Amino acid sequence: MSGFKIALAQLNFTIGDFESNTAKMADVIFQAKQDKVDLVVFSELSVCGYIPEDLLDYAWFTEKCENALEAVARTCVGIAAVVGGVMRNPSKGRSLQNVACMMYDGRIQEIVPKTLLPNYDVFNENRYFQSGTESQVIEFKGVKIGIAICEDLWDIYNDFEYLTSPGKALKSLGAELIINPSASPFNLGKHSLRNAFFGGHASRFDLPVLYVNQVGVHTELIFDGSSRAINGNGEVVLQAPSFEETVVYTQFKDGQFEMGQSVPLETNDTAQLYKSLIFGIRDYFKKMGFTHAILGASGGIDSAVVQVLATEALGAKNVHPILMPSMFSSDHSVTDAEKLAAILGNIPITLPIKDIYDTFLTTLGPVFAGSPFGLAEENIQARARAVLLMSVSNKMGHILLNTSNKSELSVGYSTLYGDLCGAVSPLGDVYKTQVYALAKYINRQQEIIPKNILIKSPSAELSPGQKDSDSLPDYPVLDEILTLYIELKKGHNELITMGYDAVIVNKVIALVNKSEYKRYQAPPILRVSAKAFGKGRIMPLVANYNSQ
Amino acid sequence: MSGFKIALAQLNFTIGDFESNTAKMADVIFQAKQDKVDLVVFSELSVCGYIPEDLLDYAWFTEKCENALEAVARTCVGIAAVVGGVMRNPSKGRSLQNVACMMYDGRIQEIVPKTLLPNYDVFNENRYFQSGTESQVIEFKGVKIGIAICEDLWDIYNDFEYLTSPGKALKSLGAELIINPSASPFNLGKHSLRNAFFGGHASRFDLPVLYVNQVGVHTELIFDGSSRAINGNGEVVLQAPSFEETVVYTQFKDGQFEMGQSVPLETNDTAQLYKSLIFGIRDYFKKMGFTHAILGASGGIDSAVVQVLATEALGAKNVHPILMPSMFSSDHSVTDAEKLAAILGNIPITLPIKDIYDTFLTTLGPVFAGSPFGLAEENIQARARAVLLMSVSNKMGHILLNTSNKSELSVGYSTLYGDLCGAVSPLGDVYKTQVYALAKYINRQQEIIPKNILIKSPSAELSPGQKDSDSLPDYPVLDEILTLYIELKKGHNELITMGYDAVIVNKVIALVNKSEYKRYQAPPILRVSAKAFGKGRIMPLVANYNSQ
Repeated sequence: MSGFKIALAQLNFTIGDFESNTAKMADVIFQAKQDKVDLVVFSELSVCGYIPEDLLDYAWFTEKCENALEAVARTCVGIAAVVGGVMRNPSKGRSLQNVACMMYDGRIQEIVPKTLLPNYDVFNENRYFQSGTESQVIEFKGVKIGIAICEDLWDIYNDFEYLTSPGKALKSLGAELIINPSASPFNLGKHSLRNAFFGGHASRFDLPVLYVNQVGVHTELIFDGSSRAINGNGEVVLQAPSFEETVVYTQFKDGQFEMGQSVPLETNDTAQLYKSLIFGIRDYFKKMGFTHAILGASGGIDSAVVQVLATEALGAKNVHPILMPSMFSSDHSVTDAEKLAAILGNIPITLPIKDIYDTFLTTLGPVFAGSPFGLAEENIQARARAVLLMSVSNKMGHILLNTSNKSELSVGYSTLYGDLCGAVSPLGDVYKTQVYALAKYINRQQEIIPKNILIKSPSAELSPGQKDSDSLPDYPVLDEILTLYIELKKGHNELITMGYDAVIVNKVIALVNKSEYKRYQAPPILRVSAKAFGKGRIMPLVANYNSQ
Repeated sequence: MSGFKIALAQLNFTIGDFESNTAKMADVIFQAKQDKVDLVVFSELSVCGYIPEDLLDYAWFTEKCENALEAVARTCVGIAAVVGGVMRNPSKGRSLQNVACMMYDGRIQEIVPKTLLPNYDVFNENRYFQSGTESQVIEFKGVKIGIAICEDLWDIYNDFEYLTSPGKALKSLGAELIINPSASPFNLGKHSLRNAFFGGHASRFDLPVLYVNQVGVHTELIFDGSSRAINGNGEVVLQAPSFEETVVYTQFKDGQFEMGQSVPLETNDTAQLYKSLIFGIRDYFKKMGFTHAILGASGGIDSAVVQVLATEALGAKNVHPILMPSMFSSDHSVTDAEKLAAILGNIPITLPIKDIYDTFLTTLGPVFAGSPFGLAEENIQARARAVLLMSVSNKMGHILLNTSNKSELSVGYSTLYGDLCGAVSPLGDVYKTQVYALAKYINRQQEIIPKNILIKSPSAELSPGQKDSDSLPDYPVLDEILTLYIELKKGHNELITMGYDAVIVNKVIALVNKSEYKRYQAPPILRVSAKAFGKGRIMPLVANYNSQ
């Protein structure tokens, strides 16, 4: 009977870094040969990383990509590989195709273009690629293999149904195994979605599927790996870990995968969030060549959680909390922040803002004369802090972590060019209630975040006695409404029908809508939900609508 | 013989403002009836404005859009209209379609979906719409009309050729007139491109075309109108003005348009730039409900040109230049800025930054101790100014105009959260050499911008004696390289082959590539070129490439 050994190469590629990407692939192929592997499967767009975006507009980029594919092919002697990349489209239409190449005997034997191009949420593949139109099966060691690139298998798992089904086409061509090189970003709920998807796929086609996903951070997107082999009955026989670069082997024999060693997927949402964000920060810094992070440590829960995540990701000595108390800061702001730094082993720096604030007010005297304390004065404090943080960043070469959460970003409860600053935002896709859950998770075994930080009322401390609850609904209510409006795209009337208070709904939606201009200039946000701000939610600024 | 009177309704719609959009349309239809017009043609997505982006994800939005189409149809009694909007797709695929409706006798008679969906540069229509697949002609007063929505006629005028040609299909169905409701944004060179396009279209199909474009600002995009009627021989018989809301009439008789009154299109690039930017600022402010603008007036050419444009757009009393001299400002910075304000009739405010800068340095003493003056100190000045500007903005309710130009934005010669701040950037798509051309154009009849501003060496004045030319190539060379790299997508090797100095090319390209993170957080930029920063150029931040 026919059978062969397959390697699932779940690698962390860097966009545009063809040398390092192909060197990694060559290492895996070399080792696989030693281990008598017959076929190595790499993820989607493996030679160039997913997705190079408008670098694809440049001829040099496509050339390098095609050359890299050729170079990998030359190493495929005595072994086969499925390798993803970009190639010029030989026919009419868009000039490029997103392809998977079957390579052996030192050259590219078959080129399979992607048929279904995702173009929604964070995906924009129609911008670059011409769809493939015909499916084909490839005979390998007596087995008919169908290669379906990522979305090609997702014809019915979106908000809409594609006009064609490459999976169905491959089945009808007699495929006995589907290989699915992917670039599928992580978000909460994605594991369950993939379970449903692969289960459904099995029941639709009764075909084993090999799913190989990339791992690593590509600007906003966190790719989790979590590659797997699933038999035709839907049984997962091999599960690779999440957020980890790895190569795992499986044996395909008599039309199915043999049972392998699996790493159970994390099922707890908060634990997933915790792991994904630490991995996200670490890989973002690593790929950008950064080592040290700074953040404004307010003694509040958002900065505390960011500080813990960063410390876990980068090491205690590489994280520098900056305390910037004002005349409106409560005593516990400073003591709590100092306590957290001591527990984590970070060395804090304290830079009070009172003198700066006073000098701004003196300079602005002619403009501000006679007007009461208000938003302008509050924002000066937040912006003075941003200038201090960026000054430390510029002087020391440390990178500023933004500490905004998704609830604040949603309703615009943040100061543009103030606390909205940062090179990357770890919590920008994490609602305030999730931030609390993270804090409790962090403290699950011992008190890492001082208890006082968890129990005090959230406050921006920009005016005397200020509390978030003065101007916002309580966070549990706020986050529910935000989730329904942003993630689930419910409108004003639907929310009222669901029983939410009309006054609160009106207020929240109005705040979200009128804060688009702040989000337009926000830092890149690590995406951990199915609908994150950034590339996944594109809104007009010049518009007039009320969501009713 | 068959004949009828057509109105080209070149209107300025606001995205999402169905009430005001349909009220405008009703007024035009009412007046057209008085004037014995037979058919009113509105632009693409006229009821909702082009393009609502992810508002299209909301059910309430589509419902309002469909209701608005019905409402306009009810006014079409004794007159017909072609009206653009979004409707639910009755078939498989994406849930929406971009349609043009032929309305008469008080209801929608035909629905024509758009076939070619642009998905490149600033366009992203595959994100929302399912393509139409079959073309149809509509018989109206004995004439077979083919409706082709915007891109539907552009099958061969892009970097690639679409797989289908709706124009060809309409011709073969016997169309005698093509109506082309459009949403075609302005950029320099667009007039010539449209001339070539419509000329080409005529020679391909020998069919008269009625092109109706919207006018107005939609976030980055400036739509110019410039609607026209072209006969089958390519002759333009009616040319509507640019950057102006208007309704013009034409008579279609015996298979062609009768000669009408035309407004000649501006052919001078700098004059076009001038008009488009003034229109852009004015409409941006109007639609956002803003009346007053502030800007940092440095005495340099960029802020001078922005100040002139804003004064022209908003009125002298509504533009507030803020002078923020430092210890490094030359005397002429202040006197030139004051002189310009006096000429324009703006009332300047002076807020020196020395005390603020000194206080920042004192506060940062523990961090900065022993290190020489450098980037951090320079940026503190730019950021202190940004805080002052935003403080005035917050206190007075005035809106900050960004004064960065495209050359600076390209090479990152600007301070994030400093001079990169602003609600909108009028010059962010205008290279420095074009800024000079604008200044000369502004002074073409009399000295508006003081001569000294035009002749002094560009300087950020953030350190003693600093000049842009200390760290950048001369602007004419820089702008050439930038245009080739950004607009024309030439790579490093192509530039060398073209004869540019390798050291300079290396440096410029490296600066552009490593400044992506600054542009990620830049304000919306009014787009006036074929390749502007913002939605039209999407680059990964986490990547490693050198463009060679």
